[in-house]
Amino acid sequence: MDEIEVRAREELFININPIQPGGRLTPEAMKALITYGDGYSTCDWCKKPFRLDKIQRPPIDDFHAELARFLGMDQVRVVPGARRGFQAVVNSLVEQGDSVIVSSLAHYTEFLAVEAAGGLVKEVPLTKNHIVTAENTAQKIEEVKKETGALPKLIMIDHYDYMLGNEHDVYNIAKVARDHEIPFLYNGAYTIGVMPVNGKEIGADFLVGSGHKSFASPAPSGLLATTEKWADKVFRTTQMVGDVTERRFGIKEVELLGCTLMGANLIAMMASFPAVQERVKHWNEEIKKINYFAEEFLRIDGNKILSEMPRKHCLTKVDTTGSFNKIAQTHKRRGFFFSDELKAKRIVGEFVGATRAWKLNTYGLTWDQVKHLAQALQDIARKYGINVA
Amino acid sequence: MDEIEVRAREELFININPIQPGGRLTPEAMKALITYGDGYSTCDWCKKPFRLDKIQRPPIDDFHAELARFLGMDQVRVVPGARRGFQAVVNSLVEQGDSVIVSSLAHYTEFLAVEAAGGLVKEVPLTKNHIVTAENTAQKIEEVKKETGALPKLIMIDHYDYMLGNEHDVYNIAKVARDHEIPFLYNGAYTIGVMPVNGKEIGADFLVGSGHKSFASPAPSGLLATTEKWADKVFRTTQMVGDVTERRFGIKEVELLGCTLMGANLIAMMASFPAVQERVKHWNEEIKKINYFAEEFLRIDGNKILSEMPRKHCLTKVDTTGSFNKIAQTHKRRGFFFSDELKAKRIVGEFVGATRAWKLNTYGLTWDQVKHLAQALQDIARKYGINVA
Repeated sequence: MDEIEVRAREELFININPIQPGGRLTPEAMKALITYGDGYSTCDWCKKPFRLDKIQRPPIDDFHAELARFLGMDQVRVVPGARRGFQAVVNSLVEQGDSVIVSSLAHYTEFLAVEAAGGLVKEVPLTKNHIVTAENTAQKIEEVKKETGALPKLIMIDHYDYMLGNEHDVYNIAKVARDHEIPFLYNGAYTIGVMPVNGKEIGADFLVGSGHKSFASPAPSGLLATTEKWADKVFRTTQMVGDVTERRFGIKEVELLGCTLMGANLIAMMASFPAVQERVKHWNEEIKKINYFAEEFLRIDGNKILSEMPRKHCLTKVDTTGSFNKIAQTHKRRGFFFSDELKAKRIVGEFVGATRAWKLNTYGLTWDQVKHLAQALQDIARKYGINVA
Repeated sequence: MDEIEVRAREELFININPIQPGGRLTPEAMKALITYGDGYSTCDWCKKPFRLDKIQRPPIDDFHAELARFLGMDQVRVVPGARRGFQAVVNSLVEQGDSVIVSSLAHYTEFLAVEAAGGLVKEVPLTKNHIVTAENTAQKIEEVKKETGALPKLIMIDHYDYMLGNEHDVYNIAKVARDHEIPFLYNGAYTIGVMPVNGKEIGADFLVGSGHKSFASPAPSGLLATTEKWADKVFRTTQMVGDVTERRFGIKEVELLGCTLMGANLIAMMASFPAVQERVKHWNEEIKKINYFAEEFLRIDGNKILSEMPRKHCLTKVDTTGSFNKIAQTHKRRGFFFSDELKAKRIVGEFVGATRAWKLNTYGLTWDQVKHLAQALQDIARKYGINVA
């Protein structure tokens, strides 16, 4: 297929794509891909009990132990994407017709995981500031109980949502969940791997993270962590017995379908892990950068930021309806003029053609790059006669 | 993690590992990994309707269409491993307590997929030659019907099994399935990507393949193909509506959890696809090689081949209890003497330390390598006084 172009966006441009920067590979992960690219590359030294997370060479077992410690949880498994973590938990806990509480800004994969298990999503309403609070969660629990006669089987809340990158009150939501004896799944797709996350401190029963979203790893990759209390249920091993052969596969975990992330993706996660452990310590610096950017961005007349302010996450939704979109109205390239201008300044990753509400992410940019980005937007504004304060 | 060793087994050795050779990357796939390694690398040009298999740049949509044609099926999706294909089908068709017919040599992931959906596996007994026949399948259907009062909801049979690499009568089993109006899933983990497979000719309702096992792709990767008849059911799109926000995610497919194999693994599959299309035409040559090897192997006194003969697949189970295991009895290195000897001859991939029944696979070796392998085993035999005819 000669139509597969060589991808060099991260090498040639400043990439402000909202979902990509946390999954940009480290050099170590890239090296791991090259050496462990072949299909079953992790299985060279697989021996009894024949399960991925028990393999000692390369040190996959050590990685699992260290990853659990890093997350403040008792056990962890790698999975092909956060969604497969949701699925494993939901399928373990939810039966036909059961309710699951999610955020009104829940990612669609949470909806699908519940639907696949035959459950029903029940959304917690947002405050006027677009935040999921413990109070609203408690109220939703009561409503579900009243409406269906049963408590929800699970509460699944995104710490920071995919839409606005707002922080939701997971610490107090975890308390509410505990008070009602409902297990709580912390969706850390936008946090685990970029900022410090400790499941015990949060009081979560489950943590789900994404390798390709926030752990400097290739897709699909992710993780599911839990406590001793829940491990036996969600990581339960197979009980099925062959009716003719009497075969048993006792060590294999049902919801994970046995081994999960064999191959390069896991080794890349392992290779990125030291850098990930280091980079979460510098989250504050990332927050300084996005807030610097926000301040500069708002100097452009008509610009708005739709996410909460000040920013606590680099994923940010902005609104340029009052600025760049006005230019797009009469420009022969319409909204594409804006992409053209950004590209000329070596910036990509905005939603091409969008000039109303759109998302960006400054995670991992250097200060020079963030300054260049802010300057570029102001320069484009000035070029088209938009006032910059 | 400096303990992640550089993996160079495929570069430095002849690798006879039973499950690895079909997933060895092509050079094109390796290049794809390097350029598309970053997490969400496939999402640069994602636009409406926002689903992986619809992306045009890189040409993921074309790949899906060509892959379906290649397989003789109407629709195909990529999945993170064959097991996720089983899961999608089983979870769509099987409810609590339903029966699913599998082979007595079924892979454990089929067991788990059924267990996760609350179903029960019912194994078709093997003939004395270790083959799953249509006759035995038909009889099992009747038994299940008699025993449970209901027909099985699905028949899932491996064309070639993981244990012996024997061929099972999938063509006639598909007919039996059709006669009973039970959907038939063809497990092509050991066939799709190494030999010609046409779903329409087989009469399969579902084909499942493995990227890392047989499609020269990184793990986890795989495919699930089906006919128009079943696509609406197994690839059904979400119907869930947010009770507060009224959000819908209409294009996303429930059992696939939306997008599936974002990133490098998919691009690597695409990059390997031309080579895969070519290599399946040369399956006969691969069969000549394994049969040549088998003949030479059997010249060693006491050696047996446990798989069916002549070989129709390169994955082969052998028994050296009457030869190398006798040496192991008194050797100070026990069974490891055999691995030591193989390694000295630049051969790896046998199960280290095993000298009774073990598996090997000659897929993709050159004639020179196959001859070296046969010669090496004979040389080791002679060295320890075992007669070679």
